[in-house]
Order: sequence, then structure tokens, then C-alpha cells
Amino acid sequence: MKTSVYRKSHFNSAHRLHNPLLSDQENESIFGKCNRPNYHGHNYELIVKVTGEIDPISGYVIDMKILADLIKDHIEEKFDHRNLNLDTEEFATLNPTAENIARVIYDILRPKIDKKFDLGIRLYETERNFVEYPG
Amino acid sequence: MKTSVYRKSHFNSAHRLHNPLLSDQENESIFGKCNRPNYHGHNYELIVKVTGEIDPISGYVIDMKILADLIKDHIEEKFDHRNLNLDTEEFATLNPTAENIARVIYDILRPKIDKKFDLGIRLYETERNFVEYPG
Amino acid sequence: MKTSVYRKSHFNSAHRLHNPLLSDQENESIFGKCNRPNYHGHNYELIVKVTGEIDPISGYVIDMKILADLIKDHIEEKFDHRNLNLDTEEFATLNPTAENIARVIYDILRPKIDKKFDLGIRLYETERNFVEYPG
Amino acid sequence: MKTSVYRKSHFNSAHRLHNPLLSDQENESIFGKCNRPNYHGHNYELIVKVTGEIDPISGYVIDMKILADLIKDHIEEKFDHRNLNLDTEEFATLNPTAENIARVIYDILRPKIDKKFDLGIRLYETERNFVEYPG
Amino acid sequence: MKTSVYRKSHFNSAHRLHNPLLSDQENESIFGKCNRPNYHGHNYELIVKVTGEIDPISGYVIDMKILADLIKDHIEEKFDHRNLNLDTEEFATLNPTAENIARVIYDILRPKIDKKFDLGIRLYETERNFVEYPG
Amino acid sequence: MKTSVYRKSHFNSAHRLHNPLLSDQENESIFGKCNRPNYHGHNYELIVKVTGEIDPISGYVIDMKILADLIKDHIEEKFDHRNLNLDTEEFATLNPTAENIARVIYDILRPKIDKKFDLGIRLYETERNFVEYPG
Repeated sequence: MKTSVYRKSHFNSAHRLHNPLLSDQENESIFGKCNRPNYHGHNYELIVKVTGEIDPISGYVIDMKILADLIKDHIEEKFDHRNLNLDTEEFATLNPTAENIARVIYDILRPKIDKKFDLGIRLYETERNFVEYPG
Repeated sequence: MKTSVYRKSHFNSAHRLHNPLLSDQENESIFGKCNRPNYHGHNYELIVKVTGEIDPISGYVIDMKILADLIKDHIEEKFDHRNLNLDTEEFATLNPTAENIARVIYDILRPKIDKKFDLGIRLYETERNFVEYPG
Repeated sequence: MKTSVYRKSHFNSAHRLHNPLLSDQENESIFGKCNRPNYHGHNYELIVKVTGEIDPISGYVIDMKILADLIKDHIEEKFDHRNLNLDTEEFATLNPTAENIARVIYDILRPKIDKKFDLGIRLYETERNFVEYPG
Repeated sequence: MKTSVYRKSHFNSAHRLHNPLLSDQENESIFGKCNRPNYHGHNYELIVKVTGEIDPISGYVIDMKILADLIKDHIEEKFDHRNLNLDTEEFATLNPTAENIARVIYDILRPKIDKKFDLGIRLYETERNFVEYPG
Repeated sequence: MKTSVYRKSHFNSAHRLHNPLLSDQENESIFGKCNRPNYHGHNYELIVKVTGEIDPISGYVIDMKILADLIKDHIEEKFDHRNLNLDTEEFATLNPTAENIARVIYDILRPKIDKKFDLGIRLYETERNFVEYPG
Repeated sequence: MKTSVYRKSHFNSAHRLHNPLLSDQENESIFGKCNRPNYHGHNYELIVKVTGEIDPISGYVIDMKILADLIKDHIEEKFDHRNLNLDTEEFATLNPTAENIARVIYDILRPKIDKKFDLGIRLYETERNFVEYPG
């Protein structure tokens, strides 16, 4: 049986939900106050899950320091204290919903983690709203 | 791959664990202090999980406001500041264990959420005891 | 300078806010859904604070095991898995608001803790509503 | 002895730390990544504390519903899902540090709460950084 | 569909990560500050998950008191306020990583819980690092 | 009125409660399982409180980055992943109770923080037991 390890981190970002293909009225109808033009923000909490076999030498599935550094270098550096819509190429055209942010984080980390491991992303936008990819 | 979204809410209820088909002694033996006649209570925390595809227009799996309103109208309105045994038809004869409450919540919400979505219920009776349905 | 030590515990109780000196209409107007006749309930979290000098032999302000036992014997035994209105003499006529519960707990514990110590009570009725006595 | 009651709420805002009287270099030196031009954001958690006597009729210091509505109408409506720098007159020229936000919230609520009560504000910018006013 | 129940407990232990088959330099390279010779420690939080059918008489999957007692007698008694490396036979030669501790807890509890139930272990070493077995 | 700012950090340490001036029997009687010879450990959570005036230029009471660095350099570096009894001069002869650890942290930080500020230490040994100095 496999074992999963989880690493929690966080980043604080501004964002706005908006689909440029929709009218202003449609955007407001779908996204409500999340569509307001001047952005709002969140303390995002990210939990990265890696599943695999325990290495018999180290007793680790994966070295948590290496995993933490991957998250720091490729996720926190990119998203922390940034405006997701304005400051990142990932969300230049993609709507930064929690669902899409989780999928983007998955796509960034997946090629950097050995294929023998399964990868999962949990992202808390607030304490009350969170998402998982894959679900 | 699918994505799951989670919405957390809460309700504060009184209840008592009791099976009328059992003797008083059996009830006390099985349910202990949870069987005391005048009820006790909990701050129940409910996490509803909906799994499906991300809609390409909205970037949502499901509109969280709609999900939050469903939970408010059909779960909180029914159970919050109520005595589960005395004030609800669901637990008039069904023992309100956390397991049964989770199943009842599932059965209430399932027909109200599109069949294309999977549904999951997590219910915290206390910080130390919680359940999931389906498990 | 003095040092404070804090001990957290919890009890799960049913209660109802009601003042028998008021009319039904006044009770409902003041207490809203907290006045519903069949009770609701909470996971109360209690934090007891004791302030004094550090004992040079033990390095303790007060032995936490003794403090924990006091709370268990005199607060949890009395209130846990009980209906505050029906099962306790303290709230037979006193309205069990969080404010009054905190004051009652203070009055129970104060004579059992050496006068050289200051005593404080924090009581969470929910994560969002809590009280402190003395305030 | 008086009693304190606490009410927790939250708002999600974008902001940027910047003092227009300072040079760009000084701003970056003092505020670091919090000075980035396109804003970042936080899930602010607000705890409002009101201290006074317990009313003998209600058993309340203050009706929590009234306090919650005051916070909703005058703080959440103003700051939630807003850009503090761009969307509020309070921070049009005042730097929206956690310290200043707490003081502004105090100044908004103080005239709306009876003078017989003491008022305190605790504001969490993140789980790791928070402030209190008065301190 | 089955239901899962979860029970949370905790134990406070000292440990050190070290593989005697490796050189001192390799140990330090792999385990960093976790390899320091005089031990450090953690407040471990353990969540045990049991999955099965709801018993129609009790409304329980498994009696939480029985589950809590199993955890207390066989896990807390063994690991709480102990040095995992020095005081337990389980980690006399096995490196006490979170992954290995979770697996050991599974192997202790599995034969004590009816085969009709599935068993899962979640172990928090810190709030930021945790593991699950099976993963 | 002054403002307080709080910064949370953490360190993971082994310790043992023991007073060499007492007999083994007295040590066991006072400290119970905390006296076991091979140490146990905790995830200590530290909250440092600094109280003063808000600086009109920065809007800060104190730069949180400077405060965080002070805590990192002088507290975490010294205590994290250490055995408090064996690896630190502070607790070579002083019993490392939570009360004494808080006082030692105060004494380390006090001279490094401007006298115009008040300083307070809150230390969580576990979620259930914590201390404050000054109290």
C-alpha cells in the first residue's frame, strides 16, 4: 500500500473574476462582488499531496524540504504578493477561480515531480471555500 | 480529470441518542451520556463536496453562491437552533448519530444537485469526532 | 512580573435562552431562534486563566494537572452532555447566555483556587461568539 | 466586575502599502513585496470586543445580533471584496497597514456603540500577523 | 454506500531521524536538523478513519468510545511522552519518520479492528507536514 | 491610545521536566510523565506582542520583517530542533516548563527591542496548555 505526504504553504494575492468574452452584465451576474473592477484578495492556503512508496533508506516518500522548495520556487515566488490577473501569464486570459488556480498549480508542479508519484492539489480560497484537483 | 469544490457551513442543534426499540438499560449501555433524557448539543460543522468538470465559461465547477444557498435553505433552516429529535421529521424515529445526520443531509441535497456531479458530505460533531458519507 | 497559565477544555450542552419574567413575544424579540422551546446546543470551549508567580521549585505557576482536574470535576461533570436549563441548578432560573455561563464558571472555580492567584474565564459558544469574565 | 463579548467576522480585500510622500526606493525599502504596484490581498479576520455590565433582563452585555449587524453594515459592506487603496475614502491617503485598518475600524464603530461600553479591535491580516487597537 | 468515521487524538514525543546504515555525513545530508543527536519533538495529531456500514440498531459505524479506547491503550500509552527512538521497540531500528509512524500505527490497530472495516491513518507531525497511510 | 502587533512563529523541541534538587520520587510526583528520562517533545507556538505608537511614516508599530528576523535569529535558531535540557545553556539548570521558556524568551528579546515598546510573550506548549509572560 502507498503512503501520501502533504505539505502546506500559502500565498497572498489579489484577483478579480472576469471573463472578457462575456458582457459586463453577464460578468456581474455570474461573479457578483468577485467581479468588482479594482480587485480584492485572499490568503490562499495550498496543500500539495504526493503519493508513493516509502523509500527504505530514508523512510520518506519524498524529501519534504525538496517538496517545500519546489512549492516556494515555482508557486509562492510566482503568486505571492501578486495580482493574479495582472502580474501572471497564467491568468492573463484564464479566469483565476479557485478551480483554475488549483489546476494551474498542478500543471506547474506535475513535470517537476517524478512520474512514479501521484500528485494532488488542495487550495483554500477562504476557510469556507476550497477546491481539490484532481477531485 | 475532475475537480472537487467544498463549501463549509454550520448549525447548532440539540440531540439525544436513543433507540426506542431498545430497553433503557441497553440504550444507556450503548449510548452512555449521549442518551441522557434532556438532550445535549453540538456546533455541527458541515462540509459539502461537489465533484465535476470545470465549466469553461465561468471557471466554476458549480456556483458557490448557489451551493451555499442550497445548504442554507435546506439544511441550516431545518436543523439550526433546533432539537433534532423533537423538531425534525427526519429524526422523529431515526437515531441522530453523526453517521445518520450525514446520510440524511446527503439524501436531502442529492436530488437538488445536478446528476452530473458527485456529492459528498463531511460532518463534524466535535473537533475530535467526524464522519463522511459516502465513506 | 507575573505569569499567566491557560488550560483549554470543552463541554457539549443543550440550552435555550428564555427569561420567564418576560412575555413570549418579548422573549422571541430579544432571543430570536435562541428562544425556541425545544432547545439547541453548542460545543462550548472553555479556557481557564490563572495568573501568579512562578514557583521556583516546580517552575509552574500552578500544576496543570490539578487545574485540569478541577475543571473536569466541577465544570465538565456538571455541564457536559447536559441540558443547562433543565439539568443544572445554576441555570434553573438564570438565563444561560454565554455571559452568565462564564460568570457561573468563575463563581464555581474561584473558591477552589488559592486566593494568591487571579482567575479569568474565556468561553467560546461558537467560533464566532465568545466572552470573557472578568472582561 | 465587567464582562467582554467578542464577535468574529471577515472581509476579503486587495491592498498595497505605499506612502506617496516617500520615494519609490524608500517605499520598496520599507514595504518590500507589500509595495508591489498591482496590489495583493488578504482574508482579513476581525474580532470586535465590547466590554460592559451584563444586563439583568437579557443576560447579554450587548445583543450579538445588533453587534453583528453593525459590523456587517459599516465594515464588511465597506471593505469586503474591495481594493482598500482605490475603493475606500478611508485609505485614499492613509496607508492600509493592519495597524491603520484596525484604527479606522475602531473610529467607525466607536460612535455607533453606546459610550458605557469599552471597545476593542483585533485584526488578523494573516494567521501569523495580527494587531490590536487599543493595544 | 459506506460511511467513514474519524477520531482525532494526540501524543507528544521526542524523536530523531537517523539511519544507522548510513554515514554521519549521509545522515546529516538527508535528514538535516532532524538528525541532531539529542532529539527534538512534536505534538503529533492522529486521525484514525474507520469505514463500513452503519449498524441499524446503534446508528454507529463503530462505537467511538471503543475506538477512542483502542487508540488510547495501544497508541497513546506507547508513544505519548516517550522518546520514539529510545523508548519503543517499534522504532528501535526503524527510522521514526512521519511515514513510518503512520504505518506502524496502522499495523498496531489493524488486527484490533474487525476485518469488515477499512482502516486509514492520518498523522500530523506539524500543522504544515502530515501523512496518510494508506495513501 | 497605543496599538499592539503580534507575530506568530514556532519551534519543535525535546524537553524533560526535572529539578535536580529534588529526589527522583519527588520529581515523578510533581512532573509525572513529563519527567520521563528520555525526553518527549512539542511543537511550540510562539506569539510575540509588541505595543507602541503607530509610526506616521510607515503606518507600522514596528516592521514585522525586523521582528520576524529577531525571533528567527535569537529564538528559533536556538531552540528549534533542539533538546532544551541538553542543547541550550538557558535550560542547563533551569527547568524548561512553559512558564520558564516564556520568561527566557522574554529575557532574550527584551534588550533587542526598543525600550519605547512594551513586550509580551505567549507560548503554546500544546493547543490545550499555554502561558503568557508578563501575565
